[in-house]
Amino acid sequence: MKQLKGKKVAILATHGFEQSELTVPLEKLREAGAEAQVISLESGHIKGWDMDHWGEEIPVDATLDTVEAADFDALVLPGGLFNPDTLRSHDQAVAFVGAFFQPEKQKPVAAICHGPWTLINADVVKGRKMTSYKSIRKDLQNAGAEWVDEAVVVDNGLVTSRTPDDLEAFMAKTIEEIAEGRHAA
Amino acid sequence: MKQLKGKKVAILATHGFEQSELTVPLEKLREAGAEAQVISLESGHIKGWDMDHWGEEIPVDATLDTVEAADFDALVLPGGLFNPDTLRSHDQAVAFVGAFFQPEKQKPVAAICHGPWTLINADVVKGRKMTSYKSIRKDLQNAGAEWVDEAVVVDNGLVTSRTPDDLEAFMAKTIEEIAEGRHAA
Repeated sequence: MKQLKGKKVAILATHGFEQSELTVPLEKLREAGAEAQVISLESGHIKGWDMDHWGEEIPVDATLDTVEAADFDALVLPGGLFNPDTLRSHDQAVAFVGAFFQPEKQKPVAAICHGPWTLINADVVKGRKMTSYKSIRKDLQNAGAEWVDEAVVVDNGLVTSRTPDDLEAFMAKTIEEIAEGRHAA
Repeated sequence: MKQLKGKKVAILATHGFEQSELTVPLEKLREAGAEAQVISLESGHIKGWDMDHWGEEIPVDATLDTVEAADFDALVLPGGLFNPDTLRSHDQAVAFVGAFFQPEKQKPVAAICHGPWTLINADVVKGRKMTSYKSIRKDLQNAGAEWVDEAVVVDNGLVTSRTPDDLEAFMAKTIEEIAEGRHAA
């Protein structure tokens, strides 16, 4: 079951990522044969958030200023509150995310919980069917998304889920989309 | 300097409010002679967030199900991430906030940092000039607000600020607006 052999996947996150929303995708992607890398704003480690307290530190594999979207076949955006709140304010992070949505070569992007916030700043949710943690529904709708309350939603390579409880369905669809590859716009 | 004598002010918050954004307004409002009450979803105490760790517990004066907007002359919405993220998902909290914006009797409402998130869910930011923590600028703009980067913005009784660093300017304008009273729409 190494259906992602040869695929390179970026997991973009910073401090305060919801712990399971990074560690589970990282593990599942590597199990499926992908080269998954944790990309962040600074080198060293980033600290997770585990439901209601600070959690584990995870090593950063590469910093944003040393990579570009062209290096990767797909992108995963974990949630948590602090994590996307920081990333969406960071121009380089927003540009990196936006580059996966180039017309004619949409690459698979998977975002869970509050992860889709960064997609709002990248101006890529208009007209897309998606879900998220319930609190940011209104922000996604105001940005033009068609928001639905489902465990996982796939819209032309964009995979979204609501909470850590959806992780199994989220990763099954994410791996399926990455195996499938680029989508025409 | 008891210019708020006889004024009743609700501070709506739940766990994860940015600590200084509740404690400073509470102190300043009481110093100015107002009867300031901490209103929350449940009775007991709510826990603050102090920059990067959980902070002090503050007593709740009344729960949302025992009060209504008509009982108060003004509303203050502290920020923090968890606090507005929870409140904006709570129908009763959103309705309470929205009731301060009734046409013909707009009451002063002051929101700081991520506090204005709840105003998005109450559908009251369209056409309003306001500021906020930088990360939610796009959400406010997508909801129809005219967002500016200033320490404090006053628009017809709506007072907004960006961060705890703006608290002095924020509370000066908030007290001024509450002393002034209701605004015509």
